[in-house]
Amino acid sequence: MVPVFFVLSCKEPVKDMKNNTVLENILERKSVRDYTDREISPEIMDNLLKAGMAAPSSRDRRPWQFIVVTDKTLLQTMGERLKTASCLKKANKAIVVCGDINLSDNCWFLDCSAATQNILLAAESMGLGAVWTAVYPYEDRSSIIDDIFKLPDNIKALTVIPLGYPAGKYEPKNKFDAQKIHYDRW
Amino acid sequence: MVPVFFVLSCKEPVKDMKNNTVLENILERKSVRDYTDREISPEIMDNLLKAGMAAPSSRDRRPWQFIVVTDKTLLQTMGERLKTASCLKKANKAIVVCGDINLSDNCWFLDCSAATQNILLAAESMGLGAVWTAVYPYEDRSSIIDDIFKLPDNIKALTVIPLGYPAGKYEPKNKFDAQKIHYDRW
Repeated sequence: MVPVFFVLSCKEPVKDMKNNTVLENILERKSVRDYTDREISPEIMDNLLKAGMAAPSSRDRRPWQFIVVTDKTLLQTMGERLKTASCLKKANKAIVVCGDINLSDNCWFLDCSAATQNILLAAESMGLGAVWTAVYPYEDRSSIIDDIFKLPDNIKALTVIPLGYPAGKYEPKNKFDAQKIHYDRW
Repeated sequence: MVPVFFVLSCKEPVKDMKNNTVLENILERKSVRDYTDREISPEIMDNLLKAGMAAPSSRDRRPWQFIVVTDKTLLQTMGERLKTASCLKKANKAIVVCGDINLSDNCWFLDCSAATQNILLAAESMGLGAVWTAVYPYEDRSSIIDDIFKLPDNIKALTVIPLGYPAGKYEPKNKFDAQKIHYDRW
């Protein structure tokens, strides 16, 4: 007997692990820091933002806010001042993922990390290059973003994600390590 | 003239936004707290852990560690003691995502958030139900996990992810909010 209920309740086509595009994309995601001049369309940017806002958040408070950077002079300034995000100078666009501490003072950085990861995975799936560049918890980087965007006191930047079509070929790292897995006990 | 370079450099089939399984999966992910008795195979658990370890981390320090909970008595105990994760009592398996503060004292919770989100998305893609239940930054919940697993001082739990095949139908929330998007300025 075929268990019909389970066959019907499973989703197609992503449930098949041997052809799981979602899992492949997670394993294919890599940090890309060099980009071509090709423009990223507004439609693609909208989809990245939709992906970000689909993240889970503590008590569903959705504390995220997103600054989309399209201005080339602004990307240059950010890349000059944020030494760990100098690839912004080559990026076509960027997204600054921020959190509202008035909505979530103790979990905004976790919720915004999930939103950032969603954006990185969506970018990978659309053939874009991207990289998580950290702002929080570094005081000096936070001050630079505050200064550039004049953020209100309750808005904190977690990450800046430079975006562009990859220049060159990037390979993902294989980071699987069985020693990091424990079963039922430490 | 067709721009052959771009055609060749784009990835198939996920680049097409109208048929982007990755983006659909991100938007389809939901919190599932009720599960059937159906067993999750070891192969699926391995793929969830691979997804977790494919997350980005600050300076590539990969501070994550994973405890896979398969023992039904242990799932019951955890569900009884963690009031915000009582659905563990119905879960078929669970993953406790931990971080090693000796490897990353200031970013482990961000890196482990990205790993958690990867696991949630991979679970969704395989037809599993899952939910982010927070341990960090709550002292009481952290103490319970420390007590159950006798974690070393340098290992901190970020999340417990109950896992199982969904009992019933769950719909994702549409959380898109255009007011959370800012262009080039706050």
